[in-house]
Amino acid sequence: MQYVRDNIAQMGGYISGEQSQTGDFIKLNTNENPYPASERVREAIAKAAHTLNLYPNAMGTPFRKAAAEVLGVDPSWIMCGNGSDDILTIVTRALVGEQNKLRLPYPSYILYKSLAELQGAQWEEVDYSSDWKITDAFSRPDDNVKLFFLPNPNSPTGTTVLPDDLLALADKLSCPLLIDEAYADFNEFNCLELVKQRPNIMVSRTFSKSYALAGLRFGFLVARPELIEQFVKVKDSYNCDALSIAAASAAIQDQDWLRQTVAKIKATRAHLTDKMRALGFTVPDSHANFTWNVFPNAGTLHKDLYSYLKQNGYLVRHMDYPGYGDGLRISVGTDEDTDRCLALVERYLNDVGRRSAGA
Amino acid sequence: MQYVRDNIAQMGGYISGEQSQTGDFIKLNTNENPYPASERVREAIAKAAHTLNLYPNAMGTPFRKAAAEVLGVDPSWIMCGNGSDDILTIVTRALVGEQNKLRLPYPSYILYKSLAELQGAQWEEVDYSSDWKITDAFSRPDDNVKLFFLPNPNSPTGTTVLPDDLLALADKLSCPLLIDEAYADFNEFNCLELVKQRPNIMVSRTFSKSYALAGLRFGFLVARPELIEQFVKVKDSYNCDALSIAAASAAIQDQDWLRQTVAKIKATRAHLTDKMRALGFTVPDSHANFTWNVFPNAGTLHKDLYSYLKQNGYLVRHMDYPGYGDGLRISVGTDEDTDRCLALVERYLNDVGRRSAGA
Repeated sequence: MQYVRDNIAQMGGYISGEQSQTGDFIKLNTNENPYPASERVREAIAKAAHTLNLYPNAMGTPFRKAAAEVLGVDPSWIMCGNGSDDILTIVTRALVGEQNKLRLPYPSYILYKSLAELQGAQWEEVDYSSDWKITDAFSRPDDNVKLFFLPNPNSPTGTTVLPDDLLALADKLSCPLLIDEAYADFNEFNCLELVKQRPNIMVSRTFSKSYALAGLRFGFLVARPELIEQFVKVKDSYNCDALSIAAASAAIQDQDWLRQTVAKIKATRAHLTDKMRALGFTVPDSHANFTWNVFPNAGTLHKDLYSYLKQNGYLVRHMDYPGYGDGLRISVGTDEDTDRCLALVERYLNDVGRRSAGA
Repeated sequence: MQYVRDNIAQMGGYISGEQSQTGDFIKLNTNENPYPASERVREAIAKAAHTLNLYPNAMGTPFRKAAAEVLGVDPSWIMCGNGSDDILTIVTRALVGEQNKLRLPYPSYILYKSLAELQGAQWEEVDYSSDWKITDAFSRPDDNVKLFFLPNPNSPTGTTVLPDDLLALADKLSCPLLIDEAYADFNEFNCLELVKQRPNIMVSRTFSKSYALAGLRFGFLVARPELIEQFVKVKDSYNCDALSIAAASAAIQDQDWLRQTVAKIKATRAHLTDKMRALGFTVPDSHANFTWNVFPNAGTLHKDLYSYLKQNGYLVRHMDYPGYGDGLRISVGTDEDTDRCLALVERYLNDVGRRSAGA
């Protein structure tokens, strides 16, 4: 393609999960929250909609103040983003030049590598151990590695690495470690405190999962103020709109809603995990709002089951990681949708799968 | 700063106009629209606020379809952005690498040069002629120039370049020419048709000015589908939220509101221009929603007048362009606010200015 940089022309581009807008599908494929957001969110949006002729607060400071109180950090440690993807983009642009390298675990969130490609930079994938722990490869010395993205809990597996292991990793790295806590509200712990303990640890969060606001595009970074100051130069001046700043502020102030919603999702997650295991899948304990389901010697089963579910109105995510293998990532839905999806999986294994095996 | 790329650490960062969120000031400094957006916008937002748990349409296709109908282009020629700043960022990242150069006119929108700095790239400013026309420097051959940003109408001057001159410029360039039409709705013409006529012409638009939706963050690019395809790889997957897609779709479908609002602003602009000229300022004919006001042999008058107006509750923009000079950019407000601001300018010139001249 004429005009376009080689690194852009050559890359495939990040493909996100299917987004049916028609309502024809039950979406268990992009880890959305099946419940509506806190009531306070809609009130805040309706109020903010009256002054949209004015630019928003450039730093999203009303949110920073609200979040600072809930999280126990100073507002100067917080930067708002247009979704946590915006945060990941900003940090990559600030730290990783064309001659540099981004490190990421494998398998994990496939967007990270696209962010390196967009910079015209290199990337390097380091394998988790077979029980989803950090290995020595994670901390292999390399001065050219300028940033490490580590999702915790991880996607697609839902597994989690302990804070002490992350501290040890950060101490061995010569670059910042960004812990992507998109799913941390579903975990038993988070790593916010680590940001205070190490100069090279940062944490990103999103409102797309636990707060049920994927449509809003809001996330944030917690990092030291001297890093935030640099990242602010990179972000668009008004990267967050007035509606999302108001909505996210209202959402984070409703921690009761969050606790109740997360409790419901965790209960459904336990049921989903048990049932998928009973159906023969290997399912790591999930600390997120989805499970990772691998059938032994699956052949084309994962892909076929994905198609079968889609034909029956259920979207799950079939993910194939070269060199690692494939599986199905299933988001935790409502109890009803989860049970209907499980019934379809069971029917497929008992009926369709058996039929095609006999064919 | 440790960890951060040199180009980022060394840059100052783009400084946007002051955004008072307290309502203590009448804002005539960032070219916001003084009127509330179309009624339909709030209705669309209230409706879209019910399904925020789901991700938005990744391409903003409901908007693309609505805009395509109004503008007479195919939806495949449109890419949505989180404000037109997002569009400018995406295009820069796709076209301009660390070894490349961005060209922009001078004086114009100071963000452009920050976008080059963020890439670690070079930039080159080419001067307008004294009557704000394109000069030979604009088309000087240089294979390393990969992108040309040209705002039309221009900021801070409000002046405009004719479509034929832009066609001629594009024909001499070896790179794409992005015509930034942030203010085009206030002009007598626009350059949308040029995108169809030349493979290297693109047009960007924003909802922040004419549509009174600066707080929403929504803009779009019109370019050939083969370029759009490349830019889509660069944008965040969900760069526009569900509320802004719905709101912008509603806004662009209310062309009656747009016509009426633009007519009011043009009438006030004429009054503002006449009055500032009568007060002794040189004011180029404006085709935007602001005027550029330069007092002959001003000394510190522009800066002092800016401070005086601020003390009296009116924010205007004092802009100082090294090598060119300074002046005041005043946004067109309501008739009342514009008249009160003009009365303050007059009082300053007659009273405070004279007093300090005599001191």
